[in-house]
Amino acid sequence: MARYTLYTARGTCALATHIALVEAGADFALRPLDFKSTEQRSPEYLALNPKGRVPALATPQGVLTENPALLLYIAQTHPQAGLAPLDDPFLLARMQELHSYLASTVHVNHAHTHRGARWADDAAAQEAMRAKVAQNMTDCAALLEAWLDPGPWALGERWSVADAYLYVVAGWMDGDGVDMQRFPRLRDHQARMAARPATQQALAQLG
Amino acid sequence: MARYTLYTARGTCALATHIALVEAGADFALRPLDFKSTEQRSPEYLALNPKGRVPALATPQGVLTENPALLLYIAQTHPQAGLAPLDDPFLLARMQELHSYLASTVHVNHAHTHRGARWADDAAAQEAMRAKVAQNMTDCAALLEAWLDPGPWALGERWSVADAYLYVVAGWMDGDGVDMQRFPRLRDHQARMAARPATQQALAQLG
Repeated sequence: MARYTLYTARGTCALATHIALVEAGADFALRPLDFKSTEQRSPEYLALNPKGRVPALATPQGVLTENPALLLYIAQTHPQAGLAPLDDPFLLARMQELHSYLASTVHVNHAHTHRGARWADDAAAQEAMRAKVAQNMTDCAALLEAWLDPGPWALGERWSVADAYLYVVAGWMDGDGVDMQRFPRLRDHQARMAARPATQQALAQLG
Repeated sequence: MARYTLYTARGTCALATHIALVEAGADFALRPLDFKSTEQRSPEYLALNPKGRVPALATPQGVLTENPALLLYIAQTHPQAGLAPLDDPFLLARMQELHSYLASTVHVNHAHTHRGARWADDAAAQEAMRAKVAQNMTDCAALLEAWLDPGPWALGERWSVADAYLYVVAGWMDGDGVDMQRFPRLRDHQARMAARPATQQALAQLG
């Protein structure tokens, strides 16, 4: 039996934690949920993760959720893989700053496309939210483009788990109506991430 | 000159980082911004923090933003203060999990009360968002109430910076229409936090 089990679903931000597990060489099993049949709202899954979201990671000590928590946890429990600047509090704070921005601003802006029902019951209100997504995501892309200067990775020369998270969230931008031609560093980052064996392995595992 | 400068504003989530600095015994100066005159959008502040939000912390190595990043950074740079379970990756992940939930779910739900213009231009849509805040925040309160079992602090017996963040965000719930009588652990947590000298000092410094 694997040490960790990752609860995930296709097309979600859980791919960030999935890639980190592969990069870490972690001993993990994958448990994809079927979002089409809202399996994430099944009694079985809610007993495991009352938030009804992914990612959730079953560990020997209990279940953990939230990408920013999981990414640092994976880096800390697999130090030999060098996935985060664990000995540099300032650089680690920069990593965390990016994680928090991706989770609480960029992902949230994106969620107003298809998850507007979280914040308003009214169909017209949900449509008004959708109308603003492209602009909000373009503003985020501009901030992230500046963040990637000089790059090529989120923290500079060395790859970190922040790159997995940035890859996943920035990967939604084109579909959200962002003109990615304006953001060459983000496009270069997407291409670099797509070329990594761990990324390809995670995507293949997800099927 | 102080080692750190905290950019903050009254009534914002920056109070969490502020309390953590006091608890740490950190050498810091306070720089309150006047949100009424939208000083957070002034060219001077945007040069320092392009997000135009608080908190921002000027450190000897550069400016950092986002509560989850700052709270761990303050704990790591003031280890003698014992503000976080720095030597326990699982418990640290639990702390981070709470930080991430507060930032990307609870604070975001709250923001739909007065900051709906972030996600929709239409006044009727903003009103529809406001109408859903009490229910969403009540759902969050229920999850946090369960989190605090057994308590009394967010991570159990020992206080951590997560308590400062929980205190600030849960402090908005009553105003958001949550019936706090239903959540005795959250109310007990609010009272315990309000009684701490560091909390009182931070609130007094903010004026």
